[in-house]
Amino acid sequence: MTSETTTTPHLDRIVGPSDLKHMKDAELAVLAGELRNEVISVVSETGGHLGSSLGVVELTVALHAVFNAPMDKLIWDVGHQCYPHKVLTGRRHRMRTLRQKDGLSGFTKRDESEFDPFGAAHSSTSISAALGFAVGRDMGRPTGDAIAVIGDGSISAGMAYEALNNAGAEGRRLIVVLNDNEMSIAPPVGAMSTYLSGLYTEQMLSMKDLAEGVESLLPPPMRDGARRARQMVTGQGSSGTLFEELGFEYMGPVDGHDVRQLLRVFRAARARAKGPVLIHCCTVKGKGYSPAENSTDKYHGVSKFDVATGAQVKSKPNAPSYTSVFGNALTDAAARDPNIVAITAAMPSGTGVNLMAKRFPDRVFDVGIAEQHGVTFAAGMAASGLKPFCAIYSTFLQRGYDQIVHDVALQKLPVRFAIDRAGLVGADGATHAGSFDIAYLSNLPGFTVMAAADEAELVHMVETAAAYDEGPIAFRYPRGAGVGAALPEQGKVLEIGKGRIMREGTDLAILSLGTHLEHAQAAAALLEAEGVSVTVADARFAKPLDTQLVEELARDHAGLITLEQGAEGGFGSVVLHHLARRGLLDKGLAVRPLTLPDRFIHQGSADQMYEDAGLTVDEICITCLNILFPDGKVVEFPSRA
Amino acid sequence: MTSETTTTPHLDRIVGPSDLKHMKDAELAVLAGELRNEVISVVSETGGHLGSSLGVVELTVALHAVFNAPMDKLIWDVGHQCYPHKVLTGRRHRMRTLRQKDGLSGFTKRDESEFDPFGAAHSSTSISAALGFAVGRDMGRPTGDAIAVIGDGSISAGMAYEALNNAGAEGRRLIVVLNDNEMSIAPPVGAMSTYLSGLYTEQMLSMKDLAEGVESLLPPPMRDGARRARQMVTGQGSSGTLFEELGFEYMGPVDGHDVRQLLRVFRAARARAKGPVLIHCCTVKGKGYSPAENSTDKYHGVSKFDVATGAQVKSKPNAPSYTSVFGNALTDAAARDPNIVAITAAMPSGTGVNLMAKRFPDRVFDVGIAEQHGVTFAAGMAASGLKPFCAIYSTFLQRGYDQIVHDVALQKLPVRFAIDRAGLVGADGATHAGSFDIAYLSNLPGFTVMAAADEAELVHMVETAAAYDEGPIAFRYPRGAGVGAALPEQGKVLEIGKGRIMREGTDLAILSLGTHLEHAQAAAALLEAEGVSVTVADARFAKPLDTQLVEELARDHAGLITLEQGAEGGFGSVVLHHLARRGLLDKGLAVRPLTLPDRFIHQGSADQMYEDAGLTVDEICITCLNILFPDGKVVEFPSRA
Repeated sequence: MTSETTTTPHLDRIVGPSDLKHMKDAELAVLAGELRNEVISVVSETGGHLGSSLGVVELTVALHAVFNAPMDKLIWDVGHQCYPHKVLTGRRHRMRTLRQKDGLSGFTKRDESEFDPFGAAHSSTSISAALGFAVGRDMGRPTGDAIAVIGDGSISAGMAYEALNNAGAEGRRLIVVLNDNEMSIAPPVGAMSTYLSGLYTEQMLSMKDLAEGVESLLPPPMRDGARRARQMVTGQGSSGTLFEELGFEYMGPVDGHDVRQLLRVFRAARARAKGPVLIHCCTVKGKGYSPAENSTDKYHGVSKFDVATGAQVKSKPNAPSYTSVFGNALTDAAARDPNIVAITAAMPSGTGVNLMAKRFPDRVFDVGIAEQHGVTFAAGMAASGLKPFCAIYSTFLQRGYDQIVHDVALQKLPVRFAIDRAGLVGADGATHAGSFDIAYLSNLPGFTVMAAADEAELVHMVETAAAYDEGPIAFRYPRGAGVGAALPEQGKVLEIGKGRIMREGTDLAILSLGTHLEHAQAAAALLEAEGVSVTVADARFAKPLDTQLVEELARDHAGLITLEQGAEGGFGSVVLHHLARRGLLDKGLAVRPLTLPDRFIHQGSADQMYEDAGLTVDEICITCLNILFPDGKVVEFPSRA
Repeated sequence: MTSETTTTPHLDRIVGPSDLKHMKDAELAVLAGELRNEVISVVSETGGHLGSSLGVVELTVALHAVFNAPMDKLIWDVGHQCYPHKVLTGRRHRMRTLRQKDGLSGFTKRDESEFDPFGAAHSSTSISAALGFAVGRDMGRPTGDAIAVIGDGSISAGMAYEALNNAGAEGRRLIVVLNDNEMSIAPPVGAMSTYLSGLYTEQMLSMKDLAEGVESLLPPPMRDGARRARQMVTGQGSSGTLFEELGFEYMGPVDGHDVRQLLRVFRAARARAKGPVLIHCCTVKGKGYSPAENSTDKYHGVSKFDVATGAQVKSKPNAPSYTSVFGNALTDAAARDPNIVAITAAMPSGTGVNLMAKRFPDRVFDVGIAEQHGVTFAAGMAASGLKPFCAIYSTFLQRGYDQIVHDVALQKLPVRFAIDRAGLVGADGATHAGSFDIAYLSNLPGFTVMAAADEAELVHMVETAAAYDEGPIAFRYPRGAGVGAALPEQGKVLEIGKGRIMREGTDLAILSLGTHLEHAQAAAALLEAEGVSVTVADARFAKPLDTQLVEELARDHAGLITLEQGAEGGFGSVVLHHLARRGLLDKGLAVRPLTLPDRFIHQGSADQMYEDAGLTVDEICITCLNILFPDGKVVEFPSRA
């Protein structure tokens, strides 16, 4: 099967979701098959979140056939499963630009389409947003039904619980589709739920009542299947689901790959729901594409691949990833210190703590999508004398911000924050950018904040954090491969609050924090060719600031450029405040803080995004030249023009 | 009853919790009565969280009698109910310094006592922290049992759910005491639970099994009482509690004011718990002090009061509170615009949205302690075309930070954030300080951030926010009474990004954001008497910055002082970055950013805290003089010395 040879006669008739309304149920089932092939074909060329999207093909068709988007608001939690939705909502012709610069987003995005009423990328927001639309509708805004589609992982987060709790109490009409792809007990559940959904639509009884009556009539294997399904939802197999306890009507489990069954349930819900309804759909991640179904991660995120074989095209990186360097350094440190533990919020392999878990499974804690709890859990461990490494991506650590302030910083507890995906991250785009951590951590009293300039530095910072016990400490590093720096056998403990000079010059100084040090060095080399002599220093610490280094750089140069992969308010702000408070600006100093600009940067490769952001070698050179030659404004660097 | 005439022979024998171990159960019950009187007596003199503390007197005695603090870790959620705990743990002699400068904290605090193993003040953190200690114990750290005491309000937050979810899966020995003070059906529950807890300790059966067997044997009224109790916990009266579904053993309900019963249950749990146990205690807020029990808020937070009558000594403020000014202005705006809605996270009266709820009950949404959901719920409403005002204290808004970034800012949704308790807040201390909001909001692309200089400005800012529809907008204002500014009949819409000059001078300029404008004005007046001419401006907006105003102030004065009630990285950072990027520092400018210092400020009155922070009229004057006379360092302002 390849995209070239597969015909898509039904799909070809779809300009927008309203075209699904004219199709018979049987045609919709055929359409789903074509849509699946289309998604496989697209992602084989673009890479992306294949498994999640394949799991919701039938769900997507059925939802669009029954509900009236964009009047009805269809909100995909996380949004990475939205590829079939995008194909059906007028974006088919642009699908091959997915996750590329100027292309379609890999998530839902308000700017992109009226069929994306609420964008996403972080998990567990959909029910809150849908409830907001439901209130808007009830207050007379021109909006129809609000439907949240949320996975079983996302619904376990505290935020989703808060939303269910509130939605249940509000009692407004609201439809939550639980896309449960953990359960693969298809045949008994499918038979059972076909029967149940038939009863529901015919007889207008709640699924709960039906389930209780019907279970006892079924032969034992089917009964067990149903019980297992319900236990999955309720956690411990009580007779009332969690959702019912929270005020929802529960419908399910439904076979999420049976278009006819989905249509019946959605039509019933649409026709009859008065309050909040939860429809529990069981799906298979990677459904319908055997290389995906058979892989352990169900092709969650893939690079380009060959459709026939499923073989992914992975370019061989020149250096190990920061993630693996962190994971290995952490494991080494843990081998030497039995008090070291690690915490991840549902990202063991993404953060590299899976490497430690292989050797020390009892010392690695996956708390699920629960950053708030994860941070305070780590704080409790630190208070007990353990040495917790809390490994959370920069963008997701935002979820635990109050806990960082209130439970960690205020109590000066030595929690170590390993912050991966710092700075711009590439194809995942603005929602996943780690832009704010330097800023929101550096102004917390007593916090130590480091950024690694390369992978060898990262190894030292793991060691430094392990040794540091006086308060909270964080170290950040980017997504992707390192620069190829030689890795030390064992990290060394860095002196807290001390940077290092990389290159001595006389005209200007660049003080860099993080991996843009490479850009600073490259700029200095280019400028040298132009006769401009530049000192380059690696700050290593945003906080405590190496005040001696900063003052020397200020004193000995005509200008000082700070450089960081983060938003305004971070490292540059720390430097500027110090210079201002010490009166070092009074007599004049050309300071130029280079930060991310004051706008969100759209997806692209990380390099493309930094180019868009103006954090390039060229821009560093131009900034330097404009300090030295203020009257003749340089807009393009001559040696690169 | 007054503190003078009440004798406390049992309490007088208590130096620390170990002294409770030598007391008979009957003596412990007497001790509880004395402890209650002591707490009433103390709070009558100091003010504070009376109702919560009175509700846990017996719980506190029983916990300390059974468990071995400080080896066992007793973690009070929120911590405002800890007064009896403080009395029993060596702090009785300092209780009358409660919530005062240099006195005891009104919350638990690690720095204060080894009996406070994990401080608190924000809600719902205790289970996460306790689980951290439990892991520490299991990994060999010298720590005993971990006990979290959490209220029924706190346990409803997403963070607590995340923690229960994780603790249930971990399966470690952990004790969670649910202090449920919503339920006042004392006699039937008491009798029932006495019986049940007796059975539990004798027969070693789970409470659930017992409850199901026993309920049917009881006469109908008792049965109903038990059912109501369980429904309260489970939400919808299913046969398994939520806690059991999450992997906890459930014990209860227990009469939380019956010392003997509590002792039996806690002893049983201590002797026999293998995994996580939840003990459901029913208490009465304000218990044992009739003025508290009979008041609607159960004396949640009180000022000094007369013990005999319960009459509180409330000093009459000279001006209305910012909170009420906001509430009234919001209500006025809501009367004119039917699309205005308000969101609060369990703080309707604290935020003043109760004033709007009186007139428009259907347009005010209390989501409970659920800031994450609250922010995204507001974003959903904004996306539907409503005009949401999300009213959350600065310190608690930290809980919704990721939602502000990801759901509001990234999507440019016009959510209005009404940020009360900005800056230092007084007796609640560092945990409640609103220090970081200017910083963490101002670096978000597209965010408009205002701070009101007085209560009239606040009225204008409400109007401005209501009219502004292009993206997110926030306005902050402090706790307490306004300055007595005349309130406009109706607010006017301020020009976005424009400040105002309050006073023209020639030597220096002070650019203030927020209510410290008053201090800037006072400083300017004092300096004028010294022959120094100072311009004072109110920035109104931290973002977008009034760049024209900043540039004029920089151009026309020898120095520029920025002033804000917030941490470094906020308004001063925005000004410094602008000046640096525009090259306005190149030739020299004495800029002095006055912010909160880089340490947490301990409790006191707000004025005392600002004095501690160095944000006083004197310090402003000294900063100004040191710019003008850099060679003779001024350390004290002459006219005030």
